[in-house]
Amino acid sequence: MTDAPMTASASTATAGEVLARYLTEQAGNFLRALPQAVGEAGARPGALPSLNGASGSGGTQELLRAVRRIGGALHTYAAVLEPGWAQESRAELRWLLNLLAQEPAYQRRSARLLAALDSLSGVAPAGEAGGPGMLAGHPGAPKARALLDRQLTLARTRAHSAVLQELRSARLHALADRMTLLVGEAPLVDPAGGRAEDVLLPQAGGAFGALGSAVQALPLRRASAAYQGDALHRLGGAAPQVPPQGRTAAAGDADSALAADDAPWHRVRILLKRVRYALEVCGRPGSELSELDRVLDRHQEAADAAVTAATAARTPRITPATAYVLGVVHADQRLEVEAARFAFGSLWPDLPPSLDGWEGPPAQRTG
Amino acid sequence: MTDAPMTASASTATAGEVLARYLTEQAGNFLRALPQAVGEAGARPGALPSLNGASGSGGTQELLRAVRRIGGALHTYAAVLEPGWAQESRAELRWLLNLLAQEPAYQRRSARLLAALDSLSGVAPAGEAGGPGMLAGHPGAPKARALLDRQLTLARTRAHSAVLQELRSARLHALADRMTLLVGEAPLVDPAGGRAEDVLLPQAGGAFGALGSAVQALPLRRASAAYQGDALHRLGGAAPQVPPQGRTAAAGDADSALAADDAPWHRVRILLKRVRYALEVCGRPGSELSELDRVLDRHQEAADAAVTAATAARTPRITPATAYVLGVVHADQRLEVEAARFAFGSLWPDLPPSLDGWEGPPAQRTG
Repeated sequence: MTDAPMTASASTATAGEVLARYLTEQAGNFLRALPQAVGEAGARPGALPSLNGASGSGGTQELLRAVRRIGGALHTYAAVLEPGWAQESRAELRWLLNLLAQEPAYQRRSARLLAALDSLSGVAPAGEAGGPGMLAGHPGAPKARALLDRQLTLARTRAHSAVLQELRSARLHALADRMTLLVGEAPLVDPAGGRAEDVLLPQAGGAFGALGSAVQALPLRRASAAYQGDALHRLGGAAPQVPPQGRTAAAGDADSALAADDAPWHRVRILLKRVRYALEVCGRPGSELSELDRVLDRHQEAADAAVTAATAARTPRITPATAYVLGVVHADQRLEVEAARFAFGSLWPDLPPSLDGWEGPPAQRTG
Repeated sequence: MTDAPMTASASTATAGEVLARYLTEQAGNFLRALPQAVGEAGARPGALPSLNGASGSGGTQELLRAVRRIGGALHTYAAVLEPGWAQESRAELRWLLNLLAQEPAYQRRSARLLAALDSLSGVAPAGEAGGPGMLAGHPGAPKARALLDRQLTLARTRAHSAVLQELRSARLHALADRMTLLVGEAPLVDPAGGRAEDVLLPQAGGAFGALGSAVQALPLRRASAAYQGDALHRLGGAAPQVPPQGRTAAAGDADSALAADDAPWHRVRILLKRVRYALEVCGRPGSELSELDRVLDRHQEAADAAVTAATAARTPRITPATAYVLGVVHADQRLEVEAARFAFGSLWPDLPPSLDGWEGPPAQRTG
């Protein structure tokens, strides 16, 4: 896939031309990936291990990629697009995103948690540095593994059924029709006639500004000091959702406290993706943003995996040994969350604080 | 307490004079602290919370301080001392150290684990940054707290009984007699007549060399990278004690694997204390070493606390919720172990690689 750069020859192009070119390309990607994704889903009677890699199968992955980019562009450059159409399209794209993203997310979570458990309970291969993990030989490890595997396979199967049910639905056909129209002509409005650099860059700058403000609100100073133990001991950033007095002893308290702690980071992840895609429209892929995006994906996946471990520990009739292992796994995943925040804090200050300093449209990268 | 520095006027002193002065002072400290420690122990019918602070009561603390220093000096400067006497004295001092150190160690462990649990399961005081910990409101937290408190109180009471039983024993009286003799005259042998700087400094250098070699063998490069997850996932340094094949699923496997992983660090802690005390004899207190010593004390205490949490999780008939919380606490303490290693790795490279560069005896610090 190639981006649609705001090329040197396109520096006189209108905002509408640049945006339409990007949307046309992404809608084309959508339409090529859709039948492939449908075929792949139909070929898997359930959630099979043959679902390759950690990010779903090829067609689904390409489809998700296009959905995210079109949705992001419609959001950031809303001022150039017909409002009613853009809003409806975004809602339908969000629906498809939520539908499609679940199965690969469960698969990645399963891979993450089982790998963590195997690493914690395994021994290093001969000749490799290091000895066994802290759960080596623990009797609860195989049971905890089987429990997590069973619960995540069930969740994946359900997500797969939901996909199968919707992939031939009228709703999806209507969305595909929308994308077909988009390949032909994006429904633009007045400001689209302005010069691309005058119209699109300020809007990308707005997306960057929203990201910067959200990052400002993160407890970055704490996250940038290694081993503060904050992820386990003292959650930061969000206002506590658990009232200090009169709490009932419900395990859900801890979950909601962690969720409140993670929320601003998840919000930053969404804003960062928007900036990435907004810059793609302007022909600036932004590799630093890709790295930060991966860090925040890791943050989200570790946070979700931690919830799965905590939830599995509340399964009725498990043994204390199983629950103990799940406690270790939960803490381990929260440590991954903390590590991702640390990594984000280390990477962020190297980025430009805003887009204000940009001198018009960027030069073309591909010559 | 003042150290016995190798003063400017003492730069012509013999090794025997310098060492005897140090031993006399420390033996005096021993004899002053002993009746105080006996009185304190007798005044506590059991292991009461009135046992102040984290390091045992005043007399016991002073006694342990003197015992460690005399034992260290006898070890490092063995060549200057009558061998049979020095060896016997060290064995008896080790016995007393093991006897006395247990009760305050259990108290510190109890304080550490209960504080960790309270922090993990508590909420931040109003106005303080940060929200609740990851176990906020978890139903297993109060039960796990009560279990740890009960088990550590029992262990402390047992340690206290052992102290009470021995504090008036013939064995302790004999050791006190040894210390009384030491105040009068240290049993020196031939090399003690040489100049202090010629005789003592090479021996302190030998202790430093042993420390340096032991530190070289530590997986310091891994410890110096934050968030490698090694403490949980992949233990390093020691050869694994768990055979990769044919392991039986005993929880003790994980304990012994962790113990093997910690062993070289515990060994470095002992060697570092020896160097500290050896330098004190030469009038060089060495503040960097005190800081490293504290880091390794923290390493040891976190490792011991992790074992206690893992052991408590094997108590019969506990609930899965309790076991889950203990799993989180175990992982949290292993994270503290990793944090201490990280801190050690950050501090160590600033130290001189050896004592070879020293130009004779150090200048007096107190003017």
